[in-house]
Amino acid sequence: MRLVQFQAPHLEGPHLGLESGDGGGVIDLNAFDPTLPKTMTQFLEQGEATLSVARRAQAAQLPVLPRSEVTLLAPVTRPDKVVCVGMNYVDHCKEQNVPVPTEPIIFSKFASSIVGPYDEVVLPPESKEVDWEVELAVVIGKKGKHIKATDAMAHVAGFTVAHDVSARDWQMRRNGKQWLLGKTFDTFCPLGPALVTKDSIADPHNLKICCRLNGEVVQSSNTNQMVFKTEELIAWVSQFVTLYPGDIFLTGTPPGVGVFRKPPVFLKKGDEVQCEIEDLGVIINKVV
Amino acid sequence: MRLVQFQAPHLEGPHLGLESGDGGGVIDLNAFDPTLPKTMTQFLEQGEATLSVARRAQAAQLPVLPRSEVTLLAPVTRPDKVVCVGMNYVDHCKEQNVPVPTEPIIFSKFASSIVGPYDEVVLPPESKEVDWEVELAVVIGKKGKHIKATDAMAHVAGFTVAHDVSARDWQMRRNGKQWLLGKTFDTFCPLGPALVTKDSIADPHNLKICCRLNGEVVQSSNTNQMVFKTEELIAWVSQFVTLYPGDIFLTGTPPGVGVFRKPPVFLKKGDEVQCEIEDLGVIINKVV
Repeated sequence: MRLVQFQAPHLEGPHLGLESGDGGGVIDLNAFDPTLPKTMTQFLEQGEATLSVARRAQAAQLPVLPRSEVTLLAPVTRPDKVVCVGMNYVDHCKEQNVPVPTEPIIFSKFASSIVGPYDEVVLPPESKEVDWEVELAVVIGKKGKHIKATDAMAHVAGFTVAHDVSARDWQMRRNGKQWLLGKTFDTFCPLGPALVTKDSIADPHNLKICCRLNGEVVQSSNTNQMVFKTEELIAWVSQFVTLYPGDIFLTGTPPGVGVFRKPPVFLKKGDEVQCEIEDLGVIINKVV
Repeated sequence: MRLVQFQAPHLEGPHLGLESGDGGGVIDLNAFDPTLPKTMTQFLEQGEATLSVARRAQAAQLPVLPRSEVTLLAPVTRPDKVVCVGMNYVDHCKEQNVPVPTEPIIFSKFASSIVGPYDEVVLPPESKEVDWEVELAVVIGKKGKHIKATDAMAHVAGFTVAHDVSARDWQMRRNGKQWLLGKTFDTFCPLGPALVTKDSIADPHNLKICCRLNGEVVQSSNTNQMVFKTEELIAWVSQFVTLYPGDIFLTGTPPGVGVFRKPPVFLKKGDEVQCEIEDLGVIINKVV
């Protein structure tokens, strides 16, 4: 299933929906069952109960809102956590000429940086070095602490595409080298287009992943290059913190980012960035 | 006013209340006006409308729940952001023999680390170097971006006491020197006892601040030692991110932490830490 949060002119506030295939129309889940919650986080908190309603909606012959009538929002908004992983692609480590980490490197964005799959990324005047990073995002579906790697997939609701927009000046040289500020400007976390439930993905660690800048491929790899896979990341982070439904993991980016190009390339107004992952879809964000 | 979130045996779920003086009984605001929201974040989102209800409740002769019948929770739970500031006391910089920062150093905790004012701090088996840090916490009351320092106090709801519990091994030597993990273990952010509204504090930057370990004073300073004051911190951070009602700033700690003692001292099971700030109150957390 492709779960979405969306708005439409005839609706008051965001609704939950089912995207009928990548780029297809949207079934209004709240219209199908008015007792369903209207946010993805609350939907995920109810676990199998709400997922089974969504499956029934998918099997029924329901009216589909044409894509032209809906605006997709980020599939998850206001999660408790946006957990990010640094240097988690073998080929991205090579690009930087740094050793592959022996432990995951964890940082974070504030939830306030999340925007929708086709929203604009606002270039802040405070940075001169804003860069792209396509990433596989994992969405947590079930609360847990000290989760074993072998149990981790039971805590995953599904996957989506993330753009981990990064202000390299602030990440790498300012703020006492704490990465947070460079990673968390407003609009620096486009997500979407849909939360693709895990049962719809044969192997999340064997998906083509790419980023295009103004139509030109700048990152192209496969999630099989990830150093620490979803299960290991969940086991690692849940040593420290309780994970909640809606929490998001950004699992790191492959090579081809702007800062390591010679000469470096950074985003400018008018650019369009497309982040695409096989079977999940593409998010398209204009830089303004 | 001293706003609190509390539980009581006769209530279903948390309620908002007014503490009648530091350590006094609690007036149930949701009983006074059942239309009030039940979480502090939602209460703050409504701004002056809900604050004026609380002021009316304080002026009325209402029943006061004796302290023995209530359990205080953290005054804010599940904020969008817990913004933390590093090396923000002049005397704490001297203790480390590092220069006073010329820009604030910003890191974060996940909201999942927040616990109540008298809750237990759980020593994680993953760390051998858990340390104390008393801090003045600022609670945001009004949404804003690019807030000027001169306007910043209009965005503050009030102040409370925070304990920025810190696993030094993870903060200083692990995780690629990103501080997040060492700062954000579950229970590593006791808060409270009350959100003291800004009108009740003559000068937040002239308050005695101290931390006691098993009754012995280990930190003792004054918030006048802060390098960047509340107004400057709000102006700085709101360059990067939109601030929302309920967002919390932990404004840094004075000298006397365990890691810089000779020899270093760390928390152990059975310890009791008291963090106290003049006019705000004391939070007492047992280490288990």
